[in-house]
Amino acid sequence: MSNTFGNIFRITTFGESHGAAVGGVIDGCPSKLAIDYNLLEEEMRRRHVGDGATQRNEPDRVEFLSGILDGETLGTPIAFLIRNTDPRSNDYNETDRLYRPGHADYTYMRRYGTRDWRGGGRASGRETACRVVGGAIAKMLLARLGISISSTIIHNPEPKPGDSSGGVIECVVNGLPAGIGDPVFDKLNARLATAMMSIPSATAFAMGCGDKAAWMTGKEYRDEWNQDFTTKTNHCGGVQGGISNGMPVVFRTTFHPAVTINSDITNYIDENGMIHPVTVTGRFDSNHIPRTAVVVEAMAAMTIVDLGYRKLKF
Amino acid sequence: MSNTFGNIFRITTFGESHGAAVGGVIDGCPSKLAIDYNLLEEEMRRRHVGDGATQRNEPDRVEFLSGILDGETLGTPIAFLIRNTDPRSNDYNETDRLYRPGHADYTYMRRYGTRDWRGGGRASGRETACRVVGGAIAKMLLARLGISISSTIIHNPEPKPGDSSGGVIECVVNGLPAGIGDPVFDKLNARLATAMMSIPSATAFAMGCGDKAAWMTGKEYRDEWNQDFTTKTNHCGGVQGGISNGMPVVFRTTFHPAVTINSDITNYIDENGMIHPVTVTGRFDSNHIPRTAVVVEAMAAMTIVDLGYRKLKF
Amino acid sequence: MSNTFGNIFRITTFGESHGAAVGGVIDGCPSKLAIDYNLLEEEMRRRHVGDGATQRNEPDRVEFLSGILDGETLGTPIAFLIRNTDPRSNDYNETDRLYRPGHADYTYMRRYGTRDWRGGGRASGRETACRVVGGAIAKMLLARLGISISSTIIHNPEPKPGDSSGGVIECVVNGLPAGIGDPVFDKLNARLATAMMSIPSATAFAMGCGDKAAWMTGKEYRDEWNQDFTTKTNHCGGVQGGISNGMPVVFRTTFHPAVTINSDITNYIDENGMIHPVTVTGRFDSNHIPRTAVVVEAMAAMTIVDLGYRKLKF
Amino acid sequence: MSNTFGNIFRITTFGESHGAAVGGVIDGCPSKLAIDYNLLEEEMRRRHVGDGATQRNEPDRVEFLSGILDGETLGTPIAFLIRNTDPRSNDYNETDRLYRPGHADYTYMRRYGTRDWRGGGRASGRETACRVVGGAIAKMLLARLGISISSTIIHNPEPKPGDSSGGVIECVVNGLPAGIGDPVFDKLNARLATAMMSIPSATAFAMGCGDKAAWMTGKEYRDEWNQDFTTKTNHCGGVQGGISNGMPVVFRTTFHPAVTINSDITNYIDENGMIHPVTVTGRFDSNHIPRTAVVVEAMAAMTIVDLGYRKLKF
Repeated sequence: MSNTFGNIFRITTFGESHGAAVGGVIDGCPSKLAIDYNLLEEEMRRRHVGDGATQRNEPDRVEFLSGILDGETLGTPIAFLIRNTDPRSNDYNETDRLYRPGHADYTYMRRYGTRDWRGGGRASGRETACRVVGGAIAKMLLARLGISISSTIIHNPEPKPGDSSGGVIECVVNGLPAGIGDPVFDKLNARLATAMMSIPSATAFAMGCGDKAAWMTGKEYRDEWNQDFTTKTNHCGGVQGGISNGMPVVFRTTFHPAVTINSDITNYIDENGMIHPVTVTGRFDSNHIPRTAVVVEAMAAMTIVDLGYRKLKF
Repeated sequence: MSNTFGNIFRITTFGESHGAAVGGVIDGCPSKLAIDYNLLEEEMRRRHVGDGATQRNEPDRVEFLSGILDGETLGTPIAFLIRNTDPRSNDYNETDRLYRPGHADYTYMRRYGTRDWRGGGRASGRETACRVVGGAIAKMLLARLGISISSTIIHNPEPKPGDSSGGVIECVVNGLPAGIGDPVFDKLNARLATAMMSIPSATAFAMGCGDKAAWMTGKEYRDEWNQDFTTKTNHCGGVQGGISNGMPVVFRTTFHPAVTINSDITNYIDENGMIHPVTVTGRFDSNHIPRTAVVVEAMAAMTIVDLGYRKLKF
Repeated sequence: MSNTFGNIFRITTFGESHGAAVGGVIDGCPSKLAIDYNLLEEEMRRRHVGDGATQRNEPDRVEFLSGILDGETLGTPIAFLIRNTDPRSNDYNETDRLYRPGHADYTYMRRYGTRDWRGGGRASGRETACRVVGGAIAKMLLARLGISISSTIIHNPEPKPGDSSGGVIECVVNGLPAGIGDPVFDKLNARLATAMMSIPSATAFAMGCGDKAAWMTGKEYRDEWNQDFTTKTNHCGGVQGGISNGMPVVFRTTFHPAVTINSDITNYIDENGMIHPVTVTGRFDSNHIPRTAVVVEAMAAMTIVDLGYRKLKF
Repeated sequence: MSNTFGNIFRITTFGESHGAAVGGVIDGCPSKLAIDYNLLEEEMRRRHVGDGATQRNEPDRVEFLSGILDGETLGTPIAFLIRNTDPRSNDYNETDRLYRPGHADYTYMRRYGTRDWRGGGRASGRETACRVVGGAIAKMLLARLGISISSTIIHNPEPKPGDSSGGVIECVVNGLPAGIGDPVFDKLNARLATAMMSIPSATAFAMGCGDKAAWMTGKEYRDEWNQDFTTKTNHCGGVQGGISNGMPVVFRTTFHPAVTINSDITNYIDENGMIHPVTVTGRFDSNHIPRTAVVVEAMAAMTIVDLGYRKLKF
């Protein structure tokens, strides 16, 4: 199911970073949803900030091909595409066939026996644009039910000159009723984990108090009841036994810094194991965390819509 | 897909903690695998340690019902069950209908409109016995290819008297060739994340250096090449772009302490929001981390067998 | 997904004909369904008629292991098993390793490199007992909504002495509202087709007027409207564009006769291509059509429950 | 999974007949397949014959957006689209909101609460163009292994003046080795059945001798062995127990005639149950069978590639 996310509300994405287009097909979206084009545009804009972003200067215009009529969904597949405005021609440089450190060049080659040497291919951050489109539609569905998703960057050091920085993004789902999640393998927390870890550069996922739980005793960790079925603390992050409990759903995702740095002399390797120092040129993103927040929210939104089909009346 | 894990090598589990039995069906296991009953028994024994475990004193005998003939798999579904030797009768106490703090009693009620009040039901740790059976068979498949999975408890405080403790388990997969993992949504790290977070009491998942990645610069984080395609560091935990790179696959999972503590006066809540202090009796597990390690390995093993179908020759 | 049927209401079956047991796990059944044990028993009895059936004389007692408490479903997986009362020991006759004509002995060997030589294994009609259990539960869900499923044997010649006969079973779903079916690949008619053709010995499937449609003109075939949205004819069998239209859903399935005939000298073949005439002994079913009707209904019931999840309020 | 076909080799299609485009995403195609553009063009041409076809006169040019580099597949999703050269504007006629007899207008309305009134939407035969693209790629994979798929129209009356005709198409798969098919629910015959019945206007499916099986005795039906493991007859159509046996795979699909006929006065119905006689204008296909043959082959090819993943070395 590698390029499909979700079972009921499902997105299938496609596209290499330097090919003709990236895009996706959303299947299972309920009919008669009015598309909020302003929200979509705003979400796309949020993904398009940062220093490296200006390099390509792509407007990331989303073209819908199907599934929408007169601004409302039909219940049929919603296909969309985003043209790459600067697709590369197929003539390549010597360095194109080398494997960069910290990238997926080598692993794609081992997985598929070939790769798109024109750029990051599927492993590029460009792929996340499609997730944002799916996430925007999921947010529209959730908004009708009073469910909102927001995120905060809780750690993101200033990138050192000539280097890059990563960070931690906390995401909160408010308004989610109790009862969402499908134990034992489609637990809400488990599905959020795979959603987050599928985002390029994600390295860790934590639910509620996360790692701190291992430094607490059972009595400290335990979320005690209030009489209205809220809890006095929210160490569990709003999910118990894999099912939402009505408290805010809270989780954090850690992302490593970008590993390609402008003007940096970087040791590439070729098929034969020969190391090649290459001076990297181009304008790369020294801090991708600000633009990743909307991707986190998008994946969370799609996860919740997908798991909510039995309980939420979209 | 809530009670099924995997797409190609798939396990479907069933069973309430105090019902007749727990068990599962493994579908997609290659034929002609010789079952290593000693390994299976040893794995079951590893899950059956600890103080609380002695309470039920169940031998956890695995009975195979299908899919195996003369000690070899047939390629057909492998069904197994583990009888609960002390299933509860259906007469219940006053406290059975109350919702315990920190448990899934309330959320199951909201999700299903009913619940198995005889115990933890599906949310009990007992369910993990079925995962260990599936994991043992996955390990047998991997062993034939020289792939091994082991784990270490890297944090696990002594439980305080009258309290409980959680911990962190690190798991390493050795011998996995480069090329395993299906981007962009079935990335090896993403699938490991959902596998781990589906284990009861898991609160966080980290790949490679995990959270530390957000405190490193890109140059610090980047795993530099050796000429044999190994890397000088393994910050990424053996996975790049969602695909294994041939280095050991390393990840950590954090588990919160058990929230039910023997002899503890605990505030339960009833359907009407009334709080009831209850003195908990029974022998509960004050430290479940030692017995959880084998569950971590089991889920990792099944994840890798499932994702490996295109590249590994089982 | 080979041993799993359905996406939302799903059954996974297991078991070889001469192993310890056959059984299954039903996942996705709504909670709080009262199990109608009389209906289940009656359905099992319907599958247990005919001359061959008496041979094994198995009561086919269904033992539920999970998912049901106090006679009501919990929303968790419903596991059940049916013990084989006469499992074979593992000592075998010379003929056991030969491939019978018209059976799956040879194809299983080519598919899996091994097979259960003790009998038909998974390819035995015995496997259908599990479908009847799943179908009975699906019927209970449908009955609450006034949807009923019945079948009629519309062709079934008397078996000639020393030979066997097949037949055609027509199945009708009454009370199904318009709007059930998921185009374009999960069309109601397409899903019914795979459901029926998965039944052992099925050879053809026809929707509505079926083959006759190719001998009609468009004006003859076209189902004209009545003012209440019923149609004057029902050539399409109640499904248009893959979606039910509110008319009775009507389809037929053809089954070939049993190919193993008692006292018949039959030419088996061995691994080396040598033909062995074998006098078949045992009491085989010369007419399996009467007992197949309930299997047809069971598969139809599960198909409709599975496809109906978005529209039917179970 | 309504708009996705297949588990391993999977196509997701999209597009309304009078929207901007139809298209699809093929996921799971092996890498390093050289695209045979001539074959693709020929297959598209085969779908574009017939009288009605000229009406739209669309070249059906397939534009690939991803997954292919320098004429070879990358192993990543292959997205393609076919622009509709005459998409309708959104101004509509009075008759657009009426429900035609024999079409899916009414059922889509009941299923989704809305529909694309500009034409057949997803229920149009136009959707099958996407299947032909997927089928062409599947055929390229099969051709490398010497597996070929062909079809013959075995019944197709001349359409009467002012009326339309249906027909029966027989399809044969040659060169398929024994061992393909996944019992018990993903049997090759069962998957072919759902593949065929998902094609617009399909009404019946028959494997091998199909319906005739019910008019034969067991001894007549039984396919006897030759010493090379071929069989003297092929009544079963090359599939036993759901698995190919090495004989040609043979099946037939019946299609009803088109129900919209040029210049015909047809009784439409409105939302209130009022009947409206409408004189149909436009150039409709009075005989769609010739162009449907390639769709049959396409669905068969994709079915076999999808089921073959464990045994065929693509």
